[in-house]
Amino acid sequence: MNDIYDEIMAIAKRRGIVYPSFDIYGGLSGFYSYGPIGTLLKDNIIEVWKKFYVVREGCLLIDTPNVVPYRILKASGHVDRFTDILVECERCKSKYRADKIIEDELKIDPSKISREEMFQILKKNDLKCPSCGGKLVNPREVNLMFRTEIGFGDVIKAFLRPETAQGIFVEFNILYNVAKKKLPMGVAQIGRGFRNEISPRQGVIRLREFNMAEVEVFFDPQKDDHPFFDEIKDEKVRVLTRDDVELEDTVGSLYKRGIIKGKLLAYYIGLTKRLLVTLGIDERKLRFRQHKVHELAHYAKDCWDAEIYLERFGWTEVVGIANRSSYDLTAHSRESGVELVAYRNLERPKKVIEKVIIPKYNILGPMLKDKLKPVEKALKEGNYEEVNDKIVVKIGENERVEIPKSAVEVKEEEKTIMVEKFVPWVVEPSYGIDRILYGVLEHSFTKDDRGYAYFRFKPYIAPIKVGVFPIVSKEPFTSIAKDIYLRFIREGILAYYDASDSIGRRYARMDEIGTPYCITVDGQTLEDSTVTVRDRDTRKQVRMKVDEAIKYVKERTTFRFY
Amino acid sequence: MNDIYDEIMAIAKRRGIVYPSFDIYGGLSGFYSYGPIGTLLKDNIIEVWKKFYVVREGCLLIDTPNVVPYRILKASGHVDRFTDILVECERCKSKYRADKIIEDELKIDPSKISREEMFQILKKNDLKCPSCGGKLVNPREVNLMFRTEIGFGDVIKAFLRPETAQGIFVEFNILYNVAKKKLPMGVAQIGRGFRNEISPRQGVIRLREFNMAEVEVFFDPQKDDHPFFDEIKDEKVRVLTRDDVELEDTVGSLYKRGIIKGKLLAYYIGLTKRLLVTLGIDERKLRFRQHKVHELAHYAKDCWDAEIYLERFGWTEVVGIANRSSYDLTAHSRESGVELVAYRNLERPKKVIEKVIIPKYNILGPMLKDKLKPVEKALKEGNYEEVNDKIVVKIGENERVEIPKSAVEVKEEEKTIMVEKFVPWVVEPSYGIDRILYGVLEHSFTKDDRGYAYFRFKPYIAPIKVGVFPIVSKEPFTSIAKDIYLRFIREGILAYYDASDSIGRRYARMDEIGTPYCITVDGQTLEDSTVTVRDRDTRKQVRMKVDEAIKYVKERTTFRFY
Repeated sequence: MNDIYDEIMAIAKRRGIVYPSFDIYGGLSGFYSYGPIGTLLKDNIIEVWKKFYVVREGCLLIDTPNVVPYRILKASGHVDRFTDILVECERCKSKYRADKIIEDELKIDPSKISREEMFQILKKNDLKCPSCGGKLVNPREVNLMFRTEIGFGDVIKAFLRPETAQGIFVEFNILYNVAKKKLPMGVAQIGRGFRNEISPRQGVIRLREFNMAEVEVFFDPQKDDHPFFDEIKDEKVRVLTRDDVELEDTVGSLYKRGIIKGKLLAYYIGLTKRLLVTLGIDERKLRFRQHKVHELAHYAKDCWDAEIYLERFGWTEVVGIANRSSYDLTAHSRESGVELVAYRNLERPKKVIEKVIIPKYNILGPMLKDKLKPVEKALKEGNYEEVNDKIVVKIGENERVEIPKSAVEVKEEEKTIMVEKFVPWVVEPSYGIDRILYGVLEHSFTKDDRGYAYFRFKPYIAPIKVGVFPIVSKEPFTSIAKDIYLRFIREGILAYYDASDSIGRRYARMDEIGTPYCITVDGQTLEDSTVTVRDRDTRKQVRMKVDEAIKYVKERTTFRFY
Repeated sequence: MNDIYDEIMAIAKRRGIVYPSFDIYGGLSGFYSYGPIGTLLKDNIIEVWKKFYVVREGCLLIDTPNVVPYRILKASGHVDRFTDILVECERCKSKYRADKIIEDELKIDPSKISREEMFQILKKNDLKCPSCGGKLVNPREVNLMFRTEIGFGDVIKAFLRPETAQGIFVEFNILYNVAKKKLPMGVAQIGRGFRNEISPRQGVIRLREFNMAEVEVFFDPQKDDHPFFDEIKDEKVRVLTRDDVELEDTVGSLYKRGIIKGKLLAYYIGLTKRLLVTLGIDERKLRFRQHKVHELAHYAKDCWDAEIYLERFGWTEVVGIANRSSYDLTAHSRESGVELVAYRNLERPKKVIEKVIIPKYNILGPMLKDKLKPVEKALKEGNYEEVNDKIVVKIGENERVEIPKSAVEVKEEEKTIMVEKFVPWVVEPSYGIDRILYGVLEHSFTKDDRGYAYFRFKPYIAPIKVGVFPIVSKEPFTSIAKDIYLRFIREGILAYYDASDSIGRRYARMDEIGTPYCITVDGQTLEDSTVTVRDRDTRKQVRMKVDEAIKYVKERTTFRFY
């Protein structure tokens, strides 16, 4: 039996929204392509996302490589922990995620058990292949990153990034300088993520190559606040807390009640709700689920998933909003040997014990000659590293001088400081664009009273903004209609000129892909330069002058805040 | 000595335009990141590209996976021919592209010799390592695609795509249907390409991961024409022909003179020139170079590179415009077994000999029962494949029926047809976005009379459109300026509020990243609600009302055709 997912995906393929990739080669599960209408839809969703996060929030949008060297993903923990447990059928060789099998066959919630317990359960229970009934064997942990190699001969091992976030963390120093050392600093990245899923079976919901939009908001943990908090605090959300309590309240109040553990976290939950609803997600099918304590990564302080309700898949995560503390910056600092820190001004002077390195001039003078001065300066500013019995002094962007420890005196001094350094914390809202797009499709899917299916997209999200039709495919109607079409194009508004078939079929074709308006040039146009403007949802036509019609469509299809 | 490239890249790193990736891990040649300013610049370039190709040309924009299975790239010829010859130094193990070494050391133009000759030259000449003087040994052909594997156990071999084009070709049938079977049909794709270069040494000009924007224009080779040809034909271009003749002429005339071999090709050369100049490429540093006959791939009919002049790199290819004939569709048809064809209406009826399959009803009736009718229909419409001694009949989207050949009679019949099928040809304009972006940086790079460096970006390309400053960081100036800033944000115009340092330094900071306008709130603002609007290029200030100033900036920074 076909459900709404099948119905939508049939239209999606026929009209070029989204469909399985490599179709003529038999397809490949986990890979989908966006067709012409789907790409416009995705771009419009991303455009609104950028309006929220880049234009309004002022996040720094960056774009880093998809190919990421091994060391970085080793440091971040992905090499060791980005894994699933795989089991396979002895008979038909089908492969499954062990957690899915345990959930489906034994009705055990996999989020409530450890990896170790999962292996125990697999050992104890004689589980069968859901497709052929064969024995499930050989459970093993597999890493989900796609591997590749850079160069030839002595290759550099690398992966396709599992998330865009690591590309942000490793560039913290450059970005902190670009932002003139101000926190909170939001850094955004929109791009592909890759995950070598074990036999994905959920269509567009579980992809091996997907689109994400992530933000890392770096902040001083002593100042967990957002300048626009007051604008968002009254946003009401439905939540499912870590104690399985369902309730509805404003994000401001949920923060005050201690349910959302952080003001920035509360802010981004509120903002996410506003953004998802702006994109066309049904507010009644949206909730925020708090991760249970044992679900949290060891470094995560609190984490919330925005979940939307989908007919086939149930409650489905589309955004994750987590407090990752200082975990990632600390990890990359440790692995790279480069400090990733920010500075805070202290309200009152603070006394600290500091190691001071004092040059022995009688040794260093003759040794360094004209480099003595820059070395002295660098030592004073702390631009050095101790490596065994040497000190490596950084005296320029790419210049290092090594001096033996015996050439300096190391002392501890009490010092009064007004500025102290610290490792920033991070709140991360991470959006899954493909799932949101499918959610927008399903939540916009409507049938009119005649049973015609169409997508009730918000006008600023709609792939095509306006259809322009001559009532019949004859002069002068066609020339006038083409001229109106070109006026939209010149304004940068995506219009579609169509002169084939009956006017009813042309309206239906535009409705189906969610085009909010259609303009028709008819007999009366020749008399008084008016055209009809038809509304997708009401199917009513209003007659107005051409200039007015263009303005009418433009105003209603352009995205604006408030 | 620093050249303009070094000077630009120093600013680019400091201001967050573009810089080497994975810096804290020591970097990795061939990988660059776009910082906050660079990402905005790249997005604006892509936005204008989309206005040209998607909004105005009406190309179908699609988005297909970066990970592509082996079979597809085997069919396209990339597995066998996407290669370079590598040599390495016996002593220091440095690796080089043999063609580069031959060009640099022996002054032989590598585009004029074959692979075989290259191996001969390497054998005969005792070439040395340019960095250590060691012997260059072990020349071998290496494939430049990054490899990966999908799944676990019986993995599927795959590559990161070397170009976006193959993702378009394999979806031809879906797209041709979406376009209601009309040609010419332009299909565009913007995204990453990957190329495992042998030791890339040219900064942002030779990347292992890059951004491309490609169009495949499918057309009937009997109708090589474009509906907007007349709009473009007078576009004047500087060309270097395959016979090494330099000349300047309009694309219309170059087509008529037989120099550009095709009307669509001439059209896209003209359009490319218009687009590059619109983006900020200096017309005097732009030429179109025709590929020499021996440079052409065996299937290519004619090919032109848009080249821009860069101080360090000389004439550099930024766009390739090729006639690929029916090569790719034919290759994928052959490999996948799925027909990739279009249909043309014939001007007069044509007689053809056609194979007809007639059911033997006495056998098929009892065999097929209620499926006899759909099978009969499918056979009549040609929806079947002959596989050995069977016929596989396609009776629905996913339904196939197999019948033995003995159950039908195969005859040849003379038939009169009004529609005939053919494999479309393709003209492909393929843009290298990273090189264009660097070209825009270099060609916009200016020093004013005080020696201050800045980018003279076209206002619609500029990353930030307007700086908004209070004359001093005090109330009420700050509130008024913030309010103006927010009015821009609400309009979706990227503004930057800055209240720190002297007004001169704030202007200089905005100039440096090419911000075309700055608005300052000063004493007079309190009296008459006017502000100053300063122009980046003239450094002149004009005083106007706030509303006027917002309109002034908006109009001048929004991209419009003509």
